Amino acid sequence: MRSFFKVKTAPQVLESLKDINPLGVQTVSITNALNRVLARDIVSSEDIPGFRRSTVDGYALDARDAFGASESLPTPLVIIGEVKMGQAPGFGIKRGQCALISTGGMLPEGCDAVVMVEYAQKIEDAVVEITRPVSPLENVILADDDVKKGQTILHKGTLLRAQDLGVMAGIGISAVEVFRRPRAAIISTGEEVVAISENPKPGQIRDINSYTVGGLCTGLGAKPIYLGLAGDSFADLKVLLEKGLTKADVILLSGGSSVGVKDMTLDLFLSFADVELVAHGVSISPGKPTIIARKGNKTLWGLPGHPVSAMIIFDVFLRYIFARLSGLSDPAGYPRHTVEAELDRNIESASGREDYIRVKLATENGKLVAKPILGKSGLISTMVEADGIMKIDINTEGLYQGDTVRVRLF
Amino acid sequence: MRSFFKVKTAPQVLESLKDINPLGVQTVSITNALNRVLARDIVSSEDIPGFRRSTVDGYALDARDAFGASESLPTPLVIIGEVKMGQAPGFGIKRGQCALISTGGMLPEGCDAVVMVEYAQKIEDAVVEITRPVSPLENVILADDDVKKGQTILHKGTLLRAQDLGVMAGIGISAVEVFRRPRAAIISTGEEVVAISENPKPGQIRDINSYTVGGLCTGLGAKPIYLGLAGDSFADLKVLLEKGLTKADVILLSGGSSVGVKDMTLDLFLSFADVELVAHGVSISPGKPTIIARKGNKTLWGLPGHPVSAMIIFDVFLRYIFARLSGLSDPAGYPRHTVEAELDRNIESASGREDYIRVKLATENGKLVAKPILGKSGLISTMVEADGIMKIDINTEGLYQGDTVRVRLF
Repeated sequence: MRSFFKVKTAPQVLESLKDINPLGVQTVSITNALNRVLARDIVSSEDIPGFRRSTVDGYALDARDAFGASESLPTPLVIIGEVKMGQAPGFGIKRGQCALISTGGMLPEGCDAVVMVEYAQKIEDAVVEITRPVSPLENVILADDDVKKGQTILHKGTLLRAQDLGVMAGIGISAVEVFRRPRAAIISTGEEVVAISENPKPGQIRDINSYTVGGLCTGLGAKPIYLGLAGDSFADLKVLLEKGLTKADVILLSGGSSVGVKDMTLDLFLSFADVELVAHGVSISPGKPTIIARKGNKTLWGLPGHPVSAMIIFDVFLRYIFARLSGLSDPAGYPRHTVEAELDRNIESASGREDYIRVKLATENGKLVAKPILGKSGLISTMVEADGIMKIDINTEGLYQGDTVRVRLF
Repeated sequence: MRSFFKVKTAPQVLESLKDINPLGVQTVSITNALNRVLARDIVSSEDIPGFRRSTVDGYALDARDAFGASESLPTPLVIIGEVKMGQAPGFGIKRGQCALISTGGMLPEGCDAVVMVEYAQKIEDAVVEITRPVSPLENVILADDDVKKGQTILHKGTLLRAQDLGVMAGIGISAVEVFRRPRAAIISTGEEVVAISENPKPGQIRDINSYTVGGLCTGLGAKPIYLGLAGDSFADLKVLLEKGLTKADVILLSGGSSVGVKDMTLDLFLSFADVELVAHGVSISPGKPTIIARKGNKTLWGLPGHPVSAMIIFDVFLRYIFARLSGLSDPAGYPRHTVEAELDRNIESASGREDYIRVKLATENGKLVAKPILGKSGLISTMVEADGIMKIDINTEGLYQGDTVRVRLF
């Protein structure tokens, strides 16, 4: 068996992959654009709302007319009309006049404020007494208050949220250019790994990694393509890898944990033209036996066979790769979700590698407490029990009970 | 115009809706089950891995044979065979013997530990010298270490994560019963609201709320059904509401901000048989003019017209409703994502209502700082600018600069 001859740290691997480029662009309806990444800046070609709107129900007026108005000395104004919703008023007002207006209605010419209906008392059919002063522009949205013509309202590389869809709707954009979702080919290796539909014989286990890894892909908005199992046959794996390189942007080999499969994975990756080895082993625990290669903008991953290790390698590297491929302007900001908690026991760690520790979270005495789960990395059940993972830095030899740690939630 | 005659606090509304039941059950492939909610407990019918596995590459042996072994006084053992991956070894070992084994291989009878290849030196074809002792069970996973037969590995009401899919694969479950996704009918009201494909005339604005609300539904795993616009015609709205009640679990009317539309919404809701009014106004700012009704397990929502208000009402109530409909065992735990930050200015708040404040986050001097965005709730651009929202409790009259606040991220 070969020793790992190109072991790299996580920052070294990420450095080697930082020029992975975004995928192509496609146009989708804004009703399908949630969590997609914008492929171009969105510039408004108009002012929004485009007219002066009332934000309350009340009377539109010239603010100067309500100056000094009070309960004891109200100002009477002549109601000269009512603003119909969705229409220009069709009239203006002069000093001493006002118009009934609803929330969202368009202010008539001559008005610069709206007094709320609570501070106006109708004394005759066409006369209302104002009992409180208003400032100019009070209860009014100006024509360009929401969005200004020519303003860049959303930037290329933005992960679209509900409000981003809303603002695009507001300026009349019903379809939008986004980067294509990454596609990930998932291949299971290892002579001991059988399909989940099978009844494993002694020495065999069902394929777990395809499903954990596939789920992680889906969670990041990538499309998993399940190419199936290939045991440890070089020829069969080569065929699946060729298919993967044709169909997908990322190739994820996973499942086999024997050294034989690992050695073969390396040979397989290097059997393709223009494939460059990025790392043969990474200084991460669990997860060391990882093989990373790249062919242009596509990356090939020989993930560790242990399910926990494969998930951690995915979290450390593939989260970043999918962010790059998706065109996110801030790859570090890709869906992440961390909390601070207090460590409930000491943990040792070897210097010279990053350690990732599964933790369960609990609230004790009003404090969030992180309880390390120290089971073997071959046990998927430890990840099921865990709420998240925490990292111990490469140059740290351990952490103490009571230390504050940052936990990334699943 | 009618005053709000049944204003409720948020806890009162949630109390009225706590008996909303989960929807029906459907079976999906585990490759489609990410973020779905389990509809039954998952109990394993077998031990996993089902046999004793090695977690390293090395030699399987009786730990007693390596007792006292060292570099200077190694223990020679006879290699009687090699364990093939994916097969039962087909042989056992006796004291003084060992077997070559790879990671994931099945331990032969007679072994109770594996010594790593790094601590074993082959001196003849069939003899290896062990240079370090091992404890019994060292580098070994027992047959039921991962999952025990009869163990409930996942509980009804769990939001499925990648590792949960993996553990189901491990025990041979390829399809799983989950609760049906909620369906939400989205209807836009208001005479001033036009479709996004239209060029608004003065006094008109494009429909924003359908898209923000639809995006929020999608983000929670619900399916939005866009039923379109209905101006302020009672008859047209009634037809759309009937359609919504047939097709969906939640009816979301949104868009119109005028009092006329609000009054009509109430009449419309109450025009259906067996509809019960839950709230006419809520003590939340922004978001007060909200109408909530219910017809059995279905809820009807007259959302505020202002886009910011509609989003906040959604966050406070519909997040909970979708969690209930989805069958989540812990509705409060539905996707939420909060951080603590330091407030960068004083904020006033009226007692007697919950205030929701949009904030932008920034890191200043290594600290996360929350900067309130105080624009009007009619401006969707303020939500685009914001990173999250914070709540000021109903009995709090304001917060001070420097206070620690909890921000829910979008």
